[in-house]
Amino acid sequence: MFGIYLDRSSEISVTAQLCSQIRQKIEKGELVKGTRLPSTRKLAQEFGIARNVAIDAYEQLIAEGYLIGRTGSGTFVAEGIIAMASDMHGEAEPADMAGQQHRSDPPDQEGIIHFLTGTPDLRSFPRKVWAKYLKNAAEDSPGVLYDYGDIRGEEELRSEISVYLHRTRGMRCSAGQIMIVSGSSEGLALIAKALRPDYSSIYLENPTIEITQHIFRQTEYRITPVEVDESGMKLHEIAHFQDGHLMLLTPSHHFPSGSILSIQRRQHAVRLAEKADSYIIEDDYDGDFRLKGVPIPPLYTLNPDRVIYVGTFSKTLAPGLRIGFLVLPRRLVSRFASVKEELNIRSPSIPQIALARFIRDGRLDRHIHKMKTIYRNRRNVLIEAVKRHFGDRAVIRGDEAGMHVLVEFPQGPFDVDWQRSIAYGVKIHCVEEYSLVKGSHSHQILLGYGNIREEEIETGIERLSRFVHDWKLRN
Amino acid sequence: MFGIYLDRSSEISVTAQLCSQIRQKIEKGELVKGTRLPSTRKLAQEFGIARNVAIDAYEQLIAEGYLIGRTGSGTFVAEGIIAMASDMHGEAEPADMAGQQHRSDPPDQEGIIHFLTGTPDLRSFPRKVWAKYLKNAAEDSPGVLYDYGDIRGEEELRSEISVYLHRTRGMRCSAGQIMIVSGSSEGLALIAKALRPDYSSIYLENPTIEITQHIFRQTEYRITPVEVDESGMKLHEIAHFQDGHLMLLTPSHHFPSGSILSIQRRQHAVRLAEKADSYIIEDDYDGDFRLKGVPIPPLYTLNPDRVIYVGTFSKTLAPGLRIGFLVLPRRLVSRFASVKEELNIRSPSIPQIALARFIRDGRLDRHIHKMKTIYRNRRNVLIEAVKRHFGDRAVIRGDEAGMHVLVEFPQGPFDVDWQRSIAYGVKIHCVEEYSLVKGSHSHQILLGYGNIREEEIETGIERLSRFVHDWKLRN
Repeated sequence: MFGIYLDRSSEISVTAQLCSQIRQKIEKGELVKGTRLPSTRKLAQEFGIARNVAIDAYEQLIAEGYLIGRTGSGTFVAEGIIAMASDMHGEAEPADMAGQQHRSDPPDQEGIIHFLTGTPDLRSFPRKVWAKYLKNAAEDSPGVLYDYGDIRGEEELRSEISVYLHRTRGMRCSAGQIMIVSGSSEGLALIAKALRPDYSSIYLENPTIEITQHIFRQTEYRITPVEVDESGMKLHEIAHFQDGHLMLLTPSHHFPSGSILSIQRRQHAVRLAEKADSYIIEDDYDGDFRLKGVPIPPLYTLNPDRVIYVGTFSKTLAPGLRIGFLVLPRRLVSRFASVKEELNIRSPSIPQIALARFIRDGRLDRHIHKMKTIYRNRRNVLIEAVKRHFGDRAVIRGDEAGMHVLVEFPQGPFDVDWQRSIAYGVKIHCVEEYSLVKGSHSHQILLGYGNIREEEIETGIERLSRFVHDWKLRN
Repeated sequence: MFGIYLDRSSEISVTAQLCSQIRQKIEKGELVKGTRLPSTRKLAQEFGIARNVAIDAYEQLIAEGYLIGRTGSGTFVAEGIIAMASDMHGEAEPADMAGQQHRSDPPDQEGIIHFLTGTPDLRSFPRKVWAKYLKNAAEDSPGVLYDYGDIRGEEELRSEISVYLHRTRGMRCSAGQIMIVSGSSEGLALIAKALRPDYSSIYLENPTIEITQHIFRQTEYRITPVEVDESGMKLHEIAHFQDGHLMLLTPSHHFPSGSILSIQRRQHAVRLAEKADSYIIEDDYDGDFRLKGVPIPPLYTLNPDRVIYVGTFSKTLAPGLRIGFLVLPRRLVSRFASVKEELNIRSPSIPQIALARFIRDGRLDRHIHKMKTIYRNRRNVLIEAVKRHFGDRAVIRGDEAGMHVLVEFPQGPFDVDWQRSIAYGVKIHCVEEYSLVKGSHSHQILLGYGNIREEEIETGIERLSRFVHDWKLRN
């Protein structure tokens, strides 16, 4: 057969090469319908290949419909195949999305110091220890662990989380109430979806993290913003839940203001949910990093039947692990399991087993303990730098927990385009970015110190103060 | 202070114990509003603790709103806290979902032999090798890999997949067109969501896998079933796409019938999509396991601008890894990235890096090669057993690829309740389960051999033949 070239040094098998070249000839119209192909014996001779290889190739092409085998009379090109222009096989050019990288900390952003919030110290992640836990989990696990897992996540991890929550937060819940998710986002999306048949609106703290709004808007919830002051959401202004409302709170450390929801408002929130036969979603995104004292008991402890607790290991360990969890009121467990089952979204099992053992061995506690010291020092350096450069003009809030503080400039500058500070070599986020009702937070900024280097802090704040100074002069 | 007991041997810190017990006293109404608490000095003396511990506890309770500190006059119980019945802190009973385990192969189902489809041989998963790759990836990776990753998945893995697809399937695509997902389900859900603004219906093969229907129904697509014969979906019966239709195909190995879509129908499908300015979703769930010959070139190669290719490592490696991917037409890449970004669903990074290296080192090819031999032998044993027990009464279809065959009983029995075979110690699935239009597939069953033990096959088929025999007698 003309124009067929077999490359024996290629990684591609001879059968595959033969198939592919005959296919192309048919598709290009070089071999037309009804054409009789050489016998397998002849083909084998011609190319010096085993006859079985030729038989395999023909059988494959018959199965695919390119060829037809007629017993006793040979192999023919099938009918009904349209010859295609050869450029249809053209090389696909890389569709690169330069500038659309989604890493929050690109290796070299030309020396810009980024006071990023929400990302923990990635350099301090206990890589070697984690590597060992992963290896052991992968080696030890029975075959069944490599199967599609329990839709709620691995029992072993759910048990450890329930013990951990009891020990560190006084929460009483069974492993059966816990559902592993790939992070808070999947958790919130699952809540939004599972409760949508009964609820259509949600009270959100204003300001709040963007992703929360997206998730609930996508599932077609109406959003009712409620302002936040230094004691958290202004819950006393709500006499009763409006029809079909859920409520989402970050009681331990409001994002972004850093407020802690007071016990009076906590109790009020739970009472409201009880009366309205509704639920409160408690997003405890950085509750482990209370830097003064110990973690505050979650809202969940006030009424485990009315609170859906959302936890994550993205802040305590690393976002790249993609492990978070929900603690569900018992009556919601099967509803949530069915919704998750329908979506068929599961998390990989081996990292779950590794994490379960990591927690059981006290490694998580040790890591959190270590990180608290690191964050505490870093926060002190940050606060001192802010005081030194801004003095009375800056008020620091929300410095009791987490990995960021809020800095407010009561006498302005107002209406600042904070993005422009990049020209000064420093990147910060403004509370306004997180505001559901725009216009009143432009004099408040966030300084995240989770993944910043201590030695960058002083320079970063100095740059910030030059930016603020120049902005005032010009405006 | 009365009734406080500190347990120094507890894992819970003394500060936390102190906070928790004072909180409870306030919540139970034992300490009422305005009550003056002992000074920190006194408290420290009374319990033999450091004064700092007492200060920490009070500060924490002040932050939480339980206490109020009045400079110069002491610490008092705050107002507005409602005393709660103590049983609100009651122990949550385990909400276990016995019988709702979702493992497809529970360790001991009382000796029932399950010819499960869709699950590969989990005992053959190269655990030790995988463990090593995971460990190395976790150890070597720079901190940035522990951050929130690129929404499209790790570049390293996407590159390796693009090379792999070219080598094994002749597909030409760049890493930029590939998007890592947690499995076909997330992939299909993402497609459904991203294309919903422009499309509202979808042609599905009938019968088809259940999860596919669920996913598209959930995203409010109307479903147009199209029958399948021995050459795949009856595409020649479609003259043009109806308005707003997409199409989903399993061209390499239709599930469940095992048909291979002929080249004539492949070309027709692509032409239809081109004319209608629509897309074909190609689900290549087990394309690597073509047991005769080599993998068939995907539909994607006919027109990379019109086909969305869905791939998974659930069958070639293990479902528990939760790694699959999409290959997207270039013009769809940014749309899909934004939808995924909004959902904020990402896969863990370390297993992606491990898999990239596993592929690069030729480990995936080696594993597939090994598994093909295992599956081929197992399939031969299965087919022989079926022939021995059923003779001419059974026709075997779709035995050229994958990890299951279809067995048809042309002369019946019909209307069999195949679930009852469990009483005979054998569990099988009927094609009827996967049928969008019920009533014509009850005489066709699926025998999966992916995760069954070779020595179970003979016994399993023998039990099945007894069941069929008895069913005929009784009906």
